[in-house]
Amino acid sequence: MNSDLPSLTKFLKTLQQVPYLASKNLYRVAAHFLHMDTARAEMFCQILLETKQRITKCTICFAWQEKDQPCFLCSSPKRNRDIICVVESWQELVTIEKTGGYDGLYHVLGGVICPLDGIGPEQLTIEHLVTRVAAGANEVILATNQTPEGEATAAYIASKLKGLPVTISCLARGVPVGSSLEFMDRLTVYKALSERRPF
Amino acid sequence: MNSDLPSLTKFLKTLQQVPYLASKNLYRVAAHFLHMDTARAEMFCQILLETKQRITKCTICFAWQEKDQPCFLCSSPKRNRDIICVVESWQELVTIEKTGGYDGLYHVLGGVICPLDGIGPEQLTIEHLVTRVAAGANEVILATNQTPEGEATAAYIASKLKGLPVTISCLARGVPVGSSLEFMDRLTVYKALSERRPF
Repeated sequence: MNSDLPSLTKFLKTLQQVPYLASKNLYRVAAHFLHMDTARAEMFCQILLETKQRITKCTICFAWQEKDQPCFLCSSPKRNRDIICVVESWQELVTIEKTGGYDGLYHVLGGVICPLDGIGPEQLTIEHLVTRVAAGANEVILATNQTPEGEATAAYIASKLKGLPVTISCLARGVPVGSSLEFMDRLTVYKALSERRPF
Repeated sequence: MNSDLPSLTKFLKTLQQVPYLASKNLYRVAAHFLHMDTARAEMFCQILLETKQRITKCTICFAWQEKDQPCFLCSSPKRNRDIICVVESWQELVTIEKTGGYDGLYHVLGGVICPLDGIGPEQLTIEHLVTRVAAGANEVILATNQTPEGEATAAYIASKLKGLPVTISCLARGVPVGSSLEFMDRLTVYKALSERRPF
């Protein structure tokens, strides 16, 4: 079948490179684009390419910003410039912003230290973070994910910041809001117990 | 945040229209495209638009075909022209082709009858199917999905084909290969029992 439909096969291979597109949905997504009118498909491409042209990374916090405007996070007069929240990627930044409960600055690492994938500290923006913190900050929140790599990266950053006059904190661990203890894994319950808070 | 990053927000809205892209993965897919080099993004767009230009629907079986070639299914000399397998969409056709256990022709309906969504028989390729069958076929396999709409569509097609000298069959229902009875729903077990086969 692949050799019978070369154009379609090429398109499927291209779609396959898009992450988080389950392979069982690949054919459905391809069908969506094939059924779309050409004008809409052209619009899709135009928006994709325009976005790539207009969006860049802030040279301070490494979050996405519009090329012709200052970073909306770093330049905001409403944000508390004393706290820097360190996140792995832009997705986590969005997640935190959506809570509406944080008004400090951010620092996007661009990944986590993962020697197996060949990602060392120098591939991340850790050096920039140290410079930023040294230039003045009261608190650094290490909000990397609760994975072995995320925690190792947080530990590495903490060691790099040692000696600087800054408070280092990390996210609370425990039972997620709305869940029952019964369905939690042992380690989470253990952490929730040992890191218990006053009522 | 939306108003702070207008280009990115526009792109996210465009991506949102792609079906089967879980909303929790939207930001990750957007980040994938933003991190991609522009040349690769342009290539992605070029392949998408070229595919739309080159791929069309066969006017006989309504499967996708290359515009400048005959339909690889309808024109294949290796396929049994006496059997037509009726499927809802191209995805199901691919699923059946992958089994390697079918060598007849296909007929892609383009959906199922669903009055709530405003899809009646005239929006599907049922009339074309009746004409095809009347022109000569020994067997029609109704391989619509085991959903209420799929089964209603199969029943409608069967009623339309009544009177034509053709055998109408449908897919076997029962316990999927590899599964335990224990984890099957009652209706499946009931069907597997009542439609049992000689050992």
